Amino acid sequence: MRTDLAKESTIQQANIEGIREEIEQKDGAEILRIDVLTGEAAEKLDKPIGRYVTLTAAKTDMMDRMRRAALAKMLADELRNMTGNFRSAMVIGLGNRYVAADALGTKTAEHVFVTRHIHAHMKELLPEGTPVVSAFCANVLGVTGMETVEVVSALSHEIRPDLVILIDSLAASRIEHLGCVIQCNDSGIAPGAGVGNFRSVLSEETLHIPVLAIGVPLVVSAETILEGFGCDTDKEEDLKFMIVAPKEIDAMVKDASRVLADGINLALFGDNYTELEKLLR
Amino acid sequence: MRTDLAKESTIQQANIEGIREEIEQKDGAEILRIDVLTGEAAEKLDKPIGRYVTLTAAKTDMMDRMRRAALAKMLADELRNMTGNFRSAMVIGLGNRYVAADALGTKTAEHVFVTRHIHAHMKELLPEGTPVVSAFCANVLGVTGMETVEVVSALSHEIRPDLVILIDSLAASRIEHLGCVIQCNDSGIAPGAGVGNFRSVLSEETLHIPVLAIGVPLVVSAETILEGFGCDTDKEEDLKFMIVAPKEIDAMVKDASRVLADGINLALFGDNYTELEKLLR
Amino acid sequence: MRTDLAKESTIQQANIEGIREEIEQKDGAEILRIDVLTGEAAEKLDKPIGRYVTLTAAKTDMMDRMRRAALAKMLADELRNMTGNFRSAMVIGLGNRYVAADALGTKTAEHVFVTRHIHAHMKELLPEGTPVVSAFCANVLGVTGMETVEVVSALSHEIRPDLVILIDSLAASRIEHLGCVIQCNDSGIAPGAGVGNFRSVLSEETLHIPVLAIGVPLVVSAETILEGFGCDTDKEEDLKFMIVAPKEIDAMVKDASRVLADGINLALFGDNYTELEKLLR
Amino acid sequence: MRTDLAKESTIQQANIEGIREEIEQKDGAEILRIDVLTGEAAEKLDKPIGRYVTLTAAKTDMMDRMRRAALAKMLADELRNMTGNFRSAMVIGLGNRYVAADALGTKTAEHVFVTRHIHAHMKELLPEGTPVVSAFCANVLGVTGMETVEVVSALSHEIRPDLVILIDSLAASRIEHLGCVIQCNDSGIAPGAGVGNFRSVLSEETLHIPVLAIGVPLVVSAETILEGFGCDTDKEEDLKFMIVAPKEIDAMVKDASRVLADGINLALFGDNYTELEKLLR
Repeated sequence: MRTDLAKESTIQQANIEGIREEIEQKDGAEILRIDVLTGEAAEKLDKPIGRYVTLTAAKTDMMDRMRRAALAKMLADELRNMTGNFRSAMVIGLGNRYVAADALGTKTAEHVFVTRHIHAHMKELLPEGTPVVSAFCANVLGVTGMETVEVVSALSHEIRPDLVILIDSLAASRIEHLGCVIQCNDSGIAPGAGVGNFRSVLSEETLHIPVLAIGVPLVVSAETILEGFGCDTDKEEDLKFMIVAPKEIDAMVKDASRVLADGINLALFGDNYTELEKLLR
Repeated sequence: MRTDLAKESTIQQANIEGIREEIEQKDGAEILRIDVLTGEAAEKLDKPIGRYVTLTAAKTDMMDRMRRAALAKMLADELRNMTGNFRSAMVIGLGNRYVAADALGTKTAEHVFVTRHIHAHMKELLPEGTPVVSAFCANVLGVTGMETVEVVSALSHEIRPDLVILIDSLAASRIEHLGCVIQCNDSGIAPGAGVGNFRSVLSEETLHIPVLAIGVPLVVSAETILEGFGCDTDKEEDLKFMIVAPKEIDAMVKDASRVLADGINLALFGDNYTELEKLLR
Repeated sequence: MRTDLAKESTIQQANIEGIREEIEQKDGAEILRIDVLTGEAAEKLDKPIGRYVTLTAAKTDMMDRMRRAALAKMLADELRNMTGNFRSAMVIGLGNRYVAADALGTKTAEHVFVTRHIHAHMKELLPEGTPVVSAFCANVLGVTGMETVEVVSALSHEIRPDLVILIDSLAASRIEHLGCVIQCNDSGIAPGAGVGNFRSVLSEETLHIPVLAIGVPLVVSAETILEGFGCDTDKEEDLKFMIVAPKEIDAMVKDASRVLADGINLALFGDNYTELEKLLR
Repeated sequence: MRTDLAKESTIQQANIEGIREEIEQKDGAEILRIDVLTGEAAEKLDKPIGRYVTLTAAKTDMMDRMRRAALAKMLADELRNMTGNFRSAMVIGLGNRYVAADALGTKTAEHVFVTRHIHAHMKELLPEGTPVVSAFCANVLGVTGMETVEVVSALSHEIRPDLVILIDSLAASRIEHLGCVIQCNDSGIAPGAGVGNFRSVLSEETLHIPVLAIGVPLVVSAETILEGFGCDTDKEEDLKFMIVAPKEIDAMVKDASRVLADGINLALFGDNYTELEKLLR
């Protein structure tokens, strides 16, 4: 079973040692905070040691403007709890803008308030204490011959932010989680996950900068769904290359990217959100 | 079971009366020509009366430049057999360019040689007998509030071609058909199929111009796959909105669109293909 | 001297008979209303008979959010005065989205509230009396072989709106007018102006539907500028193909498209503007 | 007078010491090789010390497929003469893809053959001695807050190519040079030139990697044109922000980008050009 969600990993394997879970019902959503504390637990869950916070909303919440605002606020609170002090941040949208289920990262990054160039040239316009924020979309470089990890590593070392925020589409194991779960974790992310050689992980260990990864599950592998129905898929070689996604994936990505961008902006800029929105538009 | 392929419909329901089938092995591919002759057969197959020609290639053919050229030639032969004489044609790419599995129509239409403006202004540059070809992508109008059928109907009546060629992504019921079957039919197409009110069908009946529809299956519905494994999906409401597609869908669409565009160009321009390619870039 | 602005034509030729002019200073802008009443006047001004209303703002107004709101409101008032009663409208963005100075039409059309599909399927969601609005961008059809006039004519006859609103970039003769003048007229527009065969004019005469054309000057021809300096450009053949535009043309187009879209939305939807904005986003 | 062309700088200031010029007529084009040898000459010409090679074609050459092939071959020869041995190169398209006159860099970079990822994963497919080529478009990162120089510097230091090839649109002082001159130089380039603080220069001095800059003039400043006619533009503040470009700039950029991409590919891959073209498409 293949899942990027710590929430699904723990559901399947109850009572693993080395895990701390905390669940909170808040404003119509469920907040689940999982700490993977030991290497053994990490191996059993196939998730690196670290903190995983999941917001699970009702299925239709993301389509509703008011509910999106509530979710963004909850997300901002969780993000702030997961980060120490920082004066600068780099927001990186992963994934391919032109593939529907993969566009969450770029669509989110495009709506984060970027302040670094204003700090450099017109600092006086910014409210006191505004963090220095840069942002980019790793896979819209055009051509390349470079790997995402090389690009992210190079640019984060040039710019030297206190915090790197990574945004990517995730894979779930359950259809009902698609589009209504937000996962934040501090243990990094493997873009184009599943390939999985060490180098391709984006984490504090590989980037030498604290990392916050944020994602929403938007696809399930076909094998995982069939296994859930008890089907034997061993003989179906073709199935390995198939993914399952909702028909309305475009709208789902758009809605989710708004919650993420708003949540990140609120976490980064707090009370200055409104003032910056005016300044930057 | 949901499929756009007449080939799959007939496989599942052997010995239906009112159907004529002809199968040919040619240059490494299978050509299947099905005529749905009676209303009863049409109802049983859930396919309108008409001719359905299917080219089935080996799985890796579309990735190979030489094999693509062979398939394009075979496609051109079939297309010419399905059309009467015509001096003008309008090629219409259906589907949404920004959704991977749905971009086949636009990507194909973009590579068809358009000659109508040259006929109007610099006719002397064109080889004798070059047909008058226009082309557009119905769903890239930007905004709208109009339905695909309204747009196609309006533009085909303004331009009055002898033949309308429609290109769209199809749904199959079998994973092994994705990306390696080309279906041509003369009975039209329902864009965003499945919605299915009468008006939304693009056909000779609704457009009053002979129609040739060309498509390649690129997705399977999740329910169809599970049914194939004998799973009972009745209780899984969410599944109804899920589609299954290959991970490498982008490359698959690109390869298929090349074969289709080349096949259409060869069918339309025959021996003048090379001269027009030079003229038009 | 080449100009799309009636305002500039009349400045250069004072005291032409058959013209009525009215000038108003209002909320920091100048509103000039010119009626070209006779064929003689039309010929002298090189502008068809009809009404031309120009809003001229201060140079920096378009960069300021509050001033843009004021201009949009003034524009809405003028647009309403120029139209009779209508229950449906079609908004058409002319020009090429990918050419900076030519993208005004598409950028504006993209932000007009489209209601026609909601009228068709979920009428009950719309406030009483909401007009039926469709919108499209004529030059983003992809390929074609069709002329803008053919496309607009075909789609307006299919949809049959009471009013067609055309938006396009204009050419001025004076640099100081670029980006700060809005012209509305009821006598139509010639897309890709300057080519000028009769057929290519979009007007009530050619479309058989009342037309409102809205534009902002964004370029000046190089010859016009040189003539303004008294230069003799006769021997400079290359100059004929040169246009002059501001370096910051992209920002200028973006700002202008916001004012136009807001002004059109206010004119079309009046007090329901806010409710529709919520409904459609 | 503002120009990026060394060719125009030397025409205007004859007999400067510290300059060596060599002119060759070859296959219907003029090749001018200028060496700026001393700091004094550099200051007089407003061009850094280094070599500047200019290919000047006939005005219609770029529109002709056969002439483009000839120009690409000449360009490749000059590029090879300007570079020492290298086993790896990074090609960087500068400028904004969505601004017509500024899209030369991105359009060219998109058509350079990228081999670095194949070297990493499927080296055996490449002909012996194929250089390791990566490529990207600096200004399509999406959002940012980073300067072009920061991005280029970061990525070139991560990837460590032996040679950086920069492609950008240039400004000329003469209309007749637009679209038909190709300049190559080894002294770097200032993206968004004219801003001109030291840091923003991309050169061997700032990147610590040998640099080859290639460009085609596509705009002239309005002031420069007026000065050429002897006009006094001092009182016209607005003119400072105006640029002059041909109406058919899009086609001009497309044609020029083909010559540049082909020339670069021939220079990088020599006899393996055809084999790589097949492999990479």
